[in-house]
Amino acid sequence: MILLLVFACVTAPTASAGETVAAWNPTGVEWQRFRALAQADREHIYARLVELCDGAGHRLAGSPGQKRAEAIGAAWLKADGLKVTLDPVKVPVWVRGEASLAVTGPRAEPLRVLALGGSVATPDAGIEAPIVVIRDFTELSAAVNGKIVLYNHPMLPGTPSIDHYGDAVAYRGGGASKAAAFGAVAVLVRSVTTRSLHTLHTGALGYDEAQPKIPAAAITVEDAERLSRLAGAGEVRVKLRLTPHTEPDADAVNVIGELRGTGRPEEIVVIGGHLDSWDVGQGAADDGAGIVESVEALRLVAKAGAPKRTIRVVLFANEENGLRGGKAYFAAHGSERHVAAVESDIGGGAPQGFGTTASEAQQAWLTPMLAGSGLFTRPDGGGADISPLTHDGVLAIGLLPDDSHYFDVHHTDADTVDKIDPAALADSTGALAALLWQLANAPDAPVKAGVRGD
Amino acid sequence: MILLLVFACVTAPTASAGETVAAWNPTGVEWQRFRALAQADREHIYARLVELCDGAGHRLAGSPGQKRAEAIGAAWLKADGLKVTLDPVKVPVWVRGEASLAVTGPRAEPLRVLALGGSVATPDAGIEAPIVVIRDFTELSAAVNGKIVLYNHPMLPGTPSIDHYGDAVAYRGGGASKAAAFGAVAVLVRSVTTRSLHTLHTGALGYDEAQPKIPAAAITVEDAERLSRLAGAGEVRVKLRLTPHTEPDADAVNVIGELRGTGRPEEIVVIGGHLDSWDVGQGAADDGAGIVESVEALRLVAKAGAPKRTIRVVLFANEENGLRGGKAYFAAHGSERHVAAVESDIGGGAPQGFGTTASEAQQAWLTPMLAGSGLFTRPDGGGADISPLTHDGVLAIGLLPDDSHYFDVHHTDADTVDKIDPAALADSTGALAALLWQLANAPDAPVKAGVRGD
Repeated sequence: MILLLVFACVTAPTASAGETVAAWNPTGVEWQRFRALAQADREHIYARLVELCDGAGHRLAGSPGQKRAEAIGAAWLKADGLKVTLDPVKVPVWVRGEASLAVTGPRAEPLRVLALGGSVATPDAGIEAPIVVIRDFTELSAAVNGKIVLYNHPMLPGTPSIDHYGDAVAYRGGGASKAAAFGAVAVLVRSVTTRSLHTLHTGALGYDEAQPKIPAAAITVEDAERLSRLAGAGEVRVKLRLTPHTEPDADAVNVIGELRGTGRPEEIVVIGGHLDSWDVGQGAADDGAGIVESVEALRLVAKAGAPKRTIRVVLFANEENGLRGGKAYFAAHGSERHVAAVESDIGGGAPQGFGTTASEAQQAWLTPMLAGSGLFTRPDGGGADISPLTHDGVLAIGLLPDDSHYFDVHHTDADTVDKIDPAALADSTGALAALLWQLANAPDAPVKAGVRGD
Repeated sequence: MILLLVFACVTAPTASAGETVAAWNPTGVEWQRFRALAQADREHIYARLVELCDGAGHRLAGSPGQKRAEAIGAAWLKADGLKVTLDPVKVPVWVRGEASLAVTGPRAEPLRVLALGGSVATPDAGIEAPIVVIRDFTELSAAVNGKIVLYNHPMLPGTPSIDHYGDAVAYRGGGASKAAAFGAVAVLVRSVTTRSLHTLHTGALGYDEAQPKIPAAAITVEDAERLSRLAGAGEVRVKLRLTPHTEPDADAVNVIGELRGTGRPEEIVVIGGHLDSWDVGQGAADDGAGIVESVEALRLVAKAGAPKRTIRVVLFANEENGLRGGKAYFAAHGSERHVAAVESDIGGGAPQGFGTTASEAQQAWLTPMLAGSGLFTRPDGGGADISPLTHDGVLAIGLLPDDSHYFDVHHTDADTVDKIDPAALADSTGALAALLWQLANAPDAPVKAGVRGD
């Protein structure tokens, strides 16, 4: 509260010619100010996350939960005094159906299993075959022909965890088609996590259209290790049955709230996360936290005074299985003058830094804003939903929170609101607000970079 | 390895009249010696745990896994050169059947559920009723009549965790009958843990014969919290269906391995854990670790030289749902001269101390043995399997390992061998070996205490 009293006296900055970016944030004052404001509103911020998680439930694209979430998000933005727009987005509809997996030999026993998002179904009677355990793609060979491949590739521990995600998730994302190329009839994938309590992690796979589409499902780390031990002692047969199906695309919306700029309204700063989630758990960390942080950051900025540039919060309709939200936003708004796009999609932990994709001029514009924040920036950042903007040359900034427990719950039924610490959620909200404030008020923003390679 | 070279030169002590107990362990040498020996055999010790867990699977009383475990245990003891006895034990047979739980209103959704061990079945169509959320037994009232009680009583964090188990497990153990006394038709119990990844914890309940027996099941911490929030906003109805049943008692055995004493063979030191487990996971921590530590501690002692007293390792047939193993052992052997009973049944963590139940004379005999061990003793310890001996006045000693993650997996499908650290398992094995060695070789043991109250 002491901080609040002090910083309430700081006059909201307004644009003036010739001013430097650094002058917008002397000694990090904006970071302290907005992070204190966010902590003061901690209960409100957390209550919105609870409302989204409990009120909507999971929010898989095309599900009733997604529609409930759209209504909740739109109501927030309206209550916060923003101009609300619902941009139509066609989203994929993948329905999980049933799943079962059992070892049938040497000794019959059921196993936990969870289909990967987008997987095709097995025949209704299931697929029974011996397993071949693979730790690395390089081990794939003709030996998997007619077999079920088990990818037992571990996610390595380390900080930040996100740096170790890509290596492991390659097996979930691309493993089915790579195994199909060698004649495998299905794949099982070790859940992508460093900590497991017999926990199943789903997530999207992508099929290579040149290969047969074979069913794919996650098993737990524990079972992956155990089946590996078992297979080391002789043939292990399993029977997998999955009944997912895909329906025609459904109608959804990008929920957009806009605070129109007072000085340069045609210049736009976007912030957002994705409203959809997987169909397990509540999507609290992925990406309820990013949604709430984005909404609340803009609310705090609006409360602090009208910014020079326009700020839009976008609750992207669909990221998990199609990126339709980000693509639709870009199709509708890509030609507008975006000076920066910010995303939060690595959980609700306390802020540690920002990953940026920036030209030299963009980074030079951004860097002074972070002075005194205690947060780092590093290259190659952004976010999936803003990736079409990033590709088009817009300055992209992705929040890097403490993600040391994010992947424990990522894409699992354990991704529930109780895992989110209200203080950490508020702190990231405050950091995003401080960033937004400066992006929206700083002097002349550089032009966007050229179109970037993927 | 340096330690090993040094302590290989220490001559194995033999009994001699007038010697003091303290002389058996000058400067903690026995602790260093056996813990080093155990670390040298770390791979062998861990391999036995893997063999038990993977080879037998879960080992619920009366299950095929229990029979497999008996064979594995007996083979170990025979291979270790012990005299092996299989004492018959009649064990209860509770069969889990199916379980389902769903919120039926305000918005229908399925929930994870796991019957408590010993629960009666619901009617085949299930029981549908509103829930009443209770955090404490004192909140029970006539308001639960006709309702399903949800006990949302948290297990508190803290070290050692075992100290916080009793408070929380009271709701699992006794909650059904206490709620039935007020007319409740079923109970749901928050899983007993401080960390959850949507994890279900089973465990035994006990029915008060004076009350109607109502079905009881565990739900996850996450769902307990969520249903509590939901119930705060209005009536929540759930439908519970459980189909467990009880069969006639089955034949099992206490697997006993004996190393006959060379000086006072009629004096017996018992060490053990329980061979049974719940029917989820592998029972690696509960109590595969205690079984392996006990077997391996005796193996290390035997390798070090014949002890003065007889040492028996007992793989108790049944602890989880009936304590039939401990009772049968006492019925068969209670009249023999037991000088100490040791149990390990709090997981496979590194040793921190011992809980004892001891007369002044017994404690005075024990304390010098622990000098230089770096381990503490504290009162009110022992173990369930040795509790009939404890009650009869025998010195009882329970290993207190690091249990900071024991309750994460306790009675869950996450209790698998990968959770056990080989170094920690070996360290506790070594500590138990050092303890055994001294209990079996120390000068005159005190007579047993009088019969103790429960």
